[in-house]
Amino acid sequence: MDFAELAPDTSGYLGLVAYLQLGFFQSISMVSAISELAAKETLSTAAGFALSKHQGLVAEIRRRGEDPTEVMAPYVSRVDDFLLLTRGASVNENLLSIYITQGFLDDFFISLSDGLPHDVGARYASLLGADSGTSGIVSLLTDAITVDPKRAHFLAMCGRRLLGDTLLLAQSALVLEGHSESEEARIEPVFTELIATHTRRMDALGLTA
Amino acid sequence: MDFAELAPDTSGYLGLVAYLQLGFFQSISMVSAISELAAKETLSTAAGFALSKHQGLVAEIRRRGEDPTEVMAPYVSRVDDFLLLTRGASVNENLLSIYITQGFLDDFFISLSDGLPHDVGARYASLLGADSGTSGIVSLLTDAITVDPKRAHFLAMCGRRLLGDTLLLAQSALVLEGHSESEEARIEPVFTELIATHTRRMDALGLTA
Repeated sequence: MDFAELAPDTSGYLGLVAYLQLGFFQSISMVSAISELAAKETLSTAAGFALSKHQGLVAEIRRRGEDPTEVMAPYVSRVDDFLLLTRGASVNENLLSIYITQGFLDDFFISLSDGLPHDVGARYASLLGADSGTSGIVSLLTDAITVDPKRAHFLAMCGRRLLGDTLLLAQSALVLEGHSESEEARIEPVFTELIATHTRRMDALGLTA
Repeated sequence: MDFAELAPDTSGYLGLVAYLQLGFFQSISMVSAISELAAKETLSTAAGFALSKHQGLVAEIRRRGEDPTEVMAPYVSRVDDFLLLTRGASVNENLLSIYITQGFLDDFFISLSDGLPHDVGARYASLLGADSGTSGIVSLLTDAITVDPKRAHFLAMCGRRLLGDTLLLAQSALVLEGHSESEEARIEPVFTELIATHTRRMDALGLTA
């Protein structure tokens, strides 16, 4: 039995991921609004990438003859709660949140797309794998840490909290039937790999995971 | 003497218009964030269109060998003040603000592009003339007025205040030397035409201008 067999049906997958990308678009736009002019370029570009992913997934929902609003509706409160929970109190915390949560969840949903019918899964993975503008966000964060190295400890702590919330959202996307041992066995290697990638993401900022 | 001769230099024009489009992108994103799911589709699409215009103008700044941040910087506080002044207290007021201010200013800067060197002026006008997603915003507003016709009077009043603020921002873009009579004579026919277009925009909502 494979991890990808825990994937929701195609419609559920698209609804959750499409609304999540819309949420990333909103979150990044909001950070852009409160940022310095030079950072606005990086952030509005990243917001545009998230919007493109959202629009690509909405087009996929329409292609299936479904209504995007109806398909996304069941996930609105879950995603809104997640975005509220992972919203930071400062620009730098918000940048870290975007970098960590978007990076993790895009990877996670790319992995999970293996459990969808082959042709569409590959298409959605390719949409999600497109540029997110991450390198610009990493530059903004490393600049902020260079300017004030005392930020490193606080941001490292934020990164741990973000990982926890993100793991929970990821897990909520899986169709679990409560056969805890066999399900855990299937989930574990994938989550281990995603957490290792998270650690590399923190490393890229010079932060301990 | 022609109205278009009051146009700023190419760099000043691009800096103001590029930052204004970034501002529209931010404003529309913010309304999207507080809107119902069905409206979010319309609004995120419109935000994407404003972002595309911004990115097109930033590409034009780069093409001239200039730094977009430096070119936009002189206009940040003027545009931020304008957006704050024209921000509404409700979703419907904000929708009206986007519809009225963006519609007027896109038209205004298209007119003003006639005063720039011919080839670039035509290119910027074509960027600004691209789809703004206005029809979706008009639908949201007419739906809101149909649901509660008492909104019409309040929104009509908002439209008048928005027109005043928008005229002032437009005027601030002109290079005026204080020869008031001859300058007024050049400005008047253009503003008269833009105000007539504004009236048609209000008419489209069933509101008196």
